[in-house]
Amino acid sequence: MKKIVVANRGEIALRVMRSAREMGIATVAVYSEADRTMPFVQYADEAVCIGPAPSSQSYLLGDRIIEVAKSTGADAIHPGYGFLSENAKFAQAVADAGLIFIGPSASSIETMGSKLAAKQAAQKFGVPMVPGTETPLTSIDEAREVVKKTGFPILIKASAGGGGKGMRVVEKESELEEQIRLAKSEALSAFGDDAVFIEKYVGSPRHIEIQVLGDQHGNVVYLFERECSIQRRHQKLIEEAPSSCLTPDIRQAMGQCAVDVARACNYYGAGTVEFLVDEKLNFYFLEMNTRLQVEHPVTEMITGLDLVKEQIRVARGEKLPFGQNDLKINGHAIELRLCAEDPANNFLPDTGRLETYIRPQGPGVRVDDGYEAGMDIPIFYDPMISKLIAWGADREEARLRLIRAIDEYRVTGIKTTLPFGRWALQQTPFIDGNFDTNFIGRYFTPQALDASPDDEAARAAAILAAVLWEQPAAAPLQVNGSGKAPSRWKQRRKAR
Amino acid sequence: MKKIVVANRGEIALRVMRSAREMGIATVAVYSEADRTMPFVQYADEAVCIGPAPSSQSYLLGDRIIEVAKSTGADAIHPGYGFLSENAKFAQAVADAGLIFIGPSASSIETMGSKLAAKQAAQKFGVPMVPGTETPLTSIDEAREVVKKTGFPILIKASAGGGGKGMRVVEKESELEEQIRLAKSEALSAFGDDAVFIEKYVGSPRHIEIQVLGDQHGNVVYLFERECSIQRRHQKLIEEAPSSCLTPDIRQAMGQCAVDVARACNYYGAGTVEFLVDEKLNFYFLEMNTRLQVEHPVTEMITGLDLVKEQIRVARGEKLPFGQNDLKINGHAIELRLCAEDPANNFLPDTGRLETYIRPQGPGVRVDDGYEAGMDIPIFYDPMISKLIAWGADREEARLRLIRAIDEYRVTGIKTTLPFGRWALQQTPFIDGNFDTNFIGRYFTPQALDASPDDEAARAAAILAAVLWEQPAAAPLQVNGSGKAPSRWKQRRKAR
Repeated sequence: MKKIVVANRGEIALRVMRSAREMGIATVAVYSEADRTMPFVQYADEAVCIGPAPSSQSYLLGDRIIEVAKSTGADAIHPGYGFLSENAKFAQAVADAGLIFIGPSASSIETMGSKLAAKQAAQKFGVPMVPGTETPLTSIDEAREVVKKTGFPILIKASAGGGGKGMRVVEKESELEEQIRLAKSEALSAFGDDAVFIEKYVGSPRHIEIQVLGDQHGNVVYLFERECSIQRRHQKLIEEAPSSCLTPDIRQAMGQCAVDVARACNYYGAGTVEFLVDEKLNFYFLEMNTRLQVEHPVTEMITGLDLVKEQIRVARGEKLPFGQNDLKINGHAIELRLCAEDPANNFLPDTGRLETYIRPQGPGVRVDDGYEAGMDIPIFYDPMISKLIAWGADREEARLRLIRAIDEYRVTGIKTTLPFGRWALQQTPFIDGNFDTNFIGRYFTPQALDASPDDEAARAAAILAAVLWEQPAAAPLQVNGSGKAPSRWKQRRKAR
Repeated sequence: MKKIVVANRGEIALRVMRSAREMGIATVAVYSEADRTMPFVQYADEAVCIGPAPSSQSYLLGDRIIEVAKSTGADAIHPGYGFLSENAKFAQAVADAGLIFIGPSASSIETMGSKLAAKQAAQKFGVPMVPGTETPLTSIDEAREVVKKTGFPILIKASAGGGGKGMRVVEKESELEEQIRLAKSEALSAFGDDAVFIEKYVGSPRHIEIQVLGDQHGNVVYLFERECSIQRRHQKLIEEAPSSCLTPDIRQAMGQCAVDVARACNYYGAGTVEFLVDEKLNFYFLEMNTRLQVEHPVTEMITGLDLVKEQIRVARGEKLPFGQNDLKINGHAIELRLCAEDPANNFLPDTGRLETYIRPQGPGVRVDDGYEAGMDIPIFYDPMISKLIAWGADREEARLRLIRAIDEYRVTGIKTTLPFGRWALQQTPFIDGNFDTNFIGRYFTPQALDASPDDEAARAAAILAAVLWEQPAAAPLQVNGSGKAPSRWKQRRKAR
């Protein structure tokens, strides 16, 4: 493998290119007109513009990207995440063009892309699922039989449903018949189909996923878990590895299940098996993501592995150079996603220019991003600006280091999730590791950020500091009477 | 401990402040007039200007710094490295003022500050020294007796010597008498004293040091070694951990010796015991540095420890939370010092403004520095701009990652040691781990850098890229006929 086309943009394109470069593999960026000044375009050994800003006219044009691979003499394509990364047809087209798709086979993607097919495949290996019916309910008696197995509470779900319509939580037997009737009626009027299922209701679940890695010779290992329960509308905001709640036994059991799920679809490459975990640490298979995840750096930091390099090695046909027993968890890592969203205003997306953009540094801090100061955040794509990851010898060191790094990160011109991260990391439930996917709904209010220093004064101080740092000779620092220099961090510290 | 005065500047001041902040400890910067716009001054919770630029009028004013600690209500002083860090009188004055000196006791500093006293203390523990005479030679017969023990080659050194005068290498017995006569005569004319010693000549040594850490309760551990053989005029340029040449047995033996040296002076805090290692892996105690070293990050990266935090904990009187058997080497780390020097011009110091300054990022890369783009490098201090450190699962990954990071580092306006680093890391002796302190003298010529891309074209491309990144809307990127964006890294790659 001499040259890779990176069929993605932003931080993940840069991330992939860095690993490729360390392996002596050249890279080709494909980019939209809106992205022409992005760092990943500069970083690549070659770069080809493939169309206008909307993804449908550029990043989703599989055939065009395959053409670029051929015309530049590339022999492989890395899809990153999103866009074409879980598109089985694209994976097949890449293979049909005689190129290597750096990811699993098209058939693995296809199997895991269908929730029903995925569950059927996993079930053969005895992987635990949320218990319930697998076909539409035919009678109340059948419902009563099912509930004997699942226990209450249960969830009644419309077969044709979506968006919560026709979905009802039932707490006790006496409500069962009435609620089924209501759900069927609701489903009928919403979808024209009154078929409903029963599923055990997992009320306060944690979202925990297992990173797996397989080769093309039948070897599969798990690289431990990532805790991704801090979510807002199913968008993950804070991820960590390992989880604060798993015991070694449950970690091993979940890891083995994840390996089984991977085997169920003859998986190779890096993939992620997602589970719901309830308060009693029962875990249930949700789905498998057949690609690199946004939050993969926390796994890299606790295992010492470079997952992109491992993906490339597997794609080249190499055997995994380690077995399960060679893998150990080293320390703890926590990631905060910096999105161009205003947490004080219901996470409303923000747009504009990164006026100030200075990254945190120092021991144990990693920033994966795709922008530089002065750049505009395009409105066409995902609002994620960067990922801020901190490693520590233990969870508490990682947490305190991430807070320190958040305080160092200087972003003006665009509202970001930094203040949310600073708030979340200091809440007792987070500190205690005692939270679930309802964390934000239960604890967060925009007023929680009022004590935050991201106000106009802090912004002004940051701009002043940036100006001074960039033009030190032009504007000597004004020192106040006590001989102290102004410090934004100091203000922040006082504000906490 | 609530507040620390950081009695230093630049990268190490920032480094110390970051760890203090993670521990919830406030920091006070003391700074010279020349440093008023430096990031470490901004970063501190408080900052006090202590005088004009020359160190003798600011950073070396121990009394003034102690005054600042008192007036700001600080309870401890961290000296960093250099300046007052190995000044026993300062350490004592800090203690006498009722403050905590974050470092060893004044008496440990004093013992290890005298080479003779250090050797005498270490000898009691049987630490190996370069063998030879310990008093001036009185006769040729005595010399012959000594040589029977040391073997050839030997070094004749003037007792009052320095700078190589009166120093002669003797390869064989037949030359001994004549060379002693010549050395005595040379010593007499140079120093007015013809006293000479004999020492075994270690011809192609490696410089390997052991990091130790002790508490105030008598516990001392070693944190493995750092290989620091890539030096120019005794200035270290590239350091790594672990060394590529030590066996586990010799690592353990050197570690034990280093612990013995520390015990010999009742050492607590972080310290470094330096050894010469010959081709047969015989090792000889050189000296002990009673402070944090510039190159401490490579040890942090392979042990997962934060040495500044450990220093602070020990200074607070805490016991070490681990024993020797809890410590393991994890992976490999290599550091390159970026100095404002022109390697193509005999490493002549360069001064000026950091016109472009963009740090490398990505997995396993750490940059410890104290400047931002647009700043002038003051002429008053050490020419080190930053330390670039790469971690890898093994030495080869660390090496390739460091090269990748060097290629990403964009510095214009000042000549740096970056091109030297890129060259050194790609030399076969370095790749093989087969080198000693003569590496630069033996292999490096300014012409070696001719294949480097740090020429005017690359510089222009970098400036263009920086301009574009900072003002993307103002100047759309010119795309050439093939649809490829200009890439400085691409030019670099081709040039290699």
